Amino acid sequence: MIALDWGTSSLRGWLLDPDGRVLVQDRSAHGIMRLPEGGFPAAFEALTRNWDRTLPAIACGMVGSAQGWREVPYLLCPSGPDALAGALDRAGPLAIVPGLRCGDAQPEVMRGEETQILGTLAMRPELRDRSLLVLPGTHSKWARVENGRILDFATAMTGELFAVLREHSILGRPARGAEPAGADESGQAFRRGFDAAQAATDGIAPLLFSARTLVLTGQVAAAASLDYLSGLLIGDELRARLRDWQAQGRPPVALIGDPALCRRYATALGWLGVPEPPVIEDAALDGLRRIAVAAGLLEPDANGSKGAKA
Amino acid sequence: MIALDWGTSSLRGWLLDPDGRVLVQDRSAHGIMRLPEGGFPAAFEALTRNWDRTLPAIACGMVGSAQGWREVPYLLCPSGPDALAGALDRAGPLAIVPGLRCGDAQPEVMRGEETQILGTLAMRPELRDRSLLVLPGTHSKWARVENGRILDFATAMTGELFAVLREHSILGRPARGAEPAGADESGQAFRRGFDAAQAATDGIAPLLFSARTLVLTGQVAAAASLDYLSGLLIGDELRARLRDWQAQGRPPVALIGDPALCRRYATALGWLGVPEPPVIEDAALDGLRRIAVAAGLLEPDANGSKGAKA
Repeated sequence: MIALDWGTSSLRGWLLDPDGRVLVQDRSAHGIMRLPEGGFPAAFEALTRNWDRTLPAIACGMVGSAQGWREVPYLLCPSGPDALAGALDRAGPLAIVPGLRCGDAQPEVMRGEETQILGTLAMRPELRDRSLLVLPGTHSKWARVENGRILDFATAMTGELFAVLREHSILGRPARGAEPAGADESGQAFRRGFDAAQAATDGIAPLLFSARTLVLTGQVAAAASLDYLSGLLIGDELRARLRDWQAQGRPPVALIGDPALCRRYATALGWLGVPEPPVIEDAALDGLRRIAVAAGLLEPDANGSKGAKA
Repeated sequence: MIALDWGTSSLRGWLLDPDGRVLVQDRSAHGIMRLPEGGFPAAFEALTRNWDRTLPAIACGMVGSAQGWREVPYLLCPSGPDALAGALDRAGPLAIVPGLRCGDAQPEVMRGEETQILGTLAMRPELRDRSLLVLPGTHSKWARVENGRILDFATAMTGELFAVLREHSILGRPARGAEPAGADESGQAFRRGFDAAQAATDGIAPLLFSARTLVLTGQVAAAASLDYLSGLLIGDELRARLRDWQAQGRPPVALIGDPALCRRYATALGWLGVPEPPVIEDAALDGLRRIAVAAGLLEPDANGSKGAKA
């Protein structure tokens, strides 16, 4: 089988044997917003040019969005491997995993993260019964898991908000003129921002300007001001998302994604009393395998864990 | 006397007679970030080239900041006309009005708005005893007034936040491809965003992504999505800043600044039960006059209200 994780800015692919073991893997920069001439088919053929393309292929991510190869409607939460496998869009050469949606007046959507979450649950059975899975990033996702299914989830635009404020607002200006790295080696500025967010009863907006005034008044070094801002934004995200965590019986928390960013979140989660969460760096392939098994594209016991052939 | 309102992106000046009446007025694009060759002195001389430059001159705004002509330290709140006049920096050809500062762990600063506030109080005696003055904009200021002095104030980065999200984030994308104007003629999208912000117990950050998902799910038209976002941000600003307004005995509210933006705020304030606030478009000159009188640069009863000479 061929498995693809096809996002906005990159494309990754794996050639698997019937037991789910990786025979070959490859990647390209042909994300859906950076396609070569020839579009989606050309990008697919370039990546798999040495592979047997008569094999079934499955893909997750933005490839199923309105800007993707084919738009695949969101599936409603709660949803698990069987529901996602049943809703695979098989209209083209690739079977595409649908994204998920929950909420109504304030709808939430994801594409690709649902597969990473299922991959995490496949690798970590102890998270299946009940857990809170966090995927930090441009648009962080917080998913509640129950009985192996994604119950619901919420999005925090923390990464994008930080990036636009750093690059384009007055808050990024002091750090642009300062020594770039190591300004907050002790983590003091990050912690100060985090603490300010915990004390805020009105969320982040009334606090943002303090990332400027604390520099103006000499309380935070210019070069550390972005660490303060990062602490504010991540602190606010955690405060809002963990509000009901105690009341819900403190379900186990796990982090999925870039290890450096996950470590930053793990530190901040610790300040709020969350036990050291496991960090899962790469869960897309395991999720694609899990859905493929549910869809009958791989052997029922295929999990790739029997040791790689190649 | 010569009076100048010298901000980041523009410079305005007035030549006044001893009674404070306007003899001539002029403006230029020489804000402190757009100076001509020759810097501050050249910009000052260009604007006042036909005026008597031996007259005393007074200026407010960013001209007193670290990036200005001379840095004038912030004065601490509470503060009124006498304190500001006493702290005028007279070290150069221009007397510069200091900015104000309040707070400590979360400091707040302003430069120029203090003068507009004093101008407003000069024009509207009914606001002097006790009021809440709102200056919407890039960095909105909310100042509490008591006994003719500025008690304290808070900043909301609403205008800048809206601009960077519109120009540089995924939230601005749907509207960039859509018909620009008139998409929210009924104001429905703005109102929907406003209402969502009132219902939010965790502030704006957890809500931002809804400006995208409501478009994806067809609940808000792409062209109206920025009106929804504007409603979210202004709604959140008002919710946070008016939290204690009832408990404080509903002091009168007034708006100072761009009339179109003030009207948008006035509408939203009305939804929260605030009686129709007066809108003061231009209060800098009146504030400069008021401080100049307190500093002995103009006659004690100079207010420019005796009818213009010219």
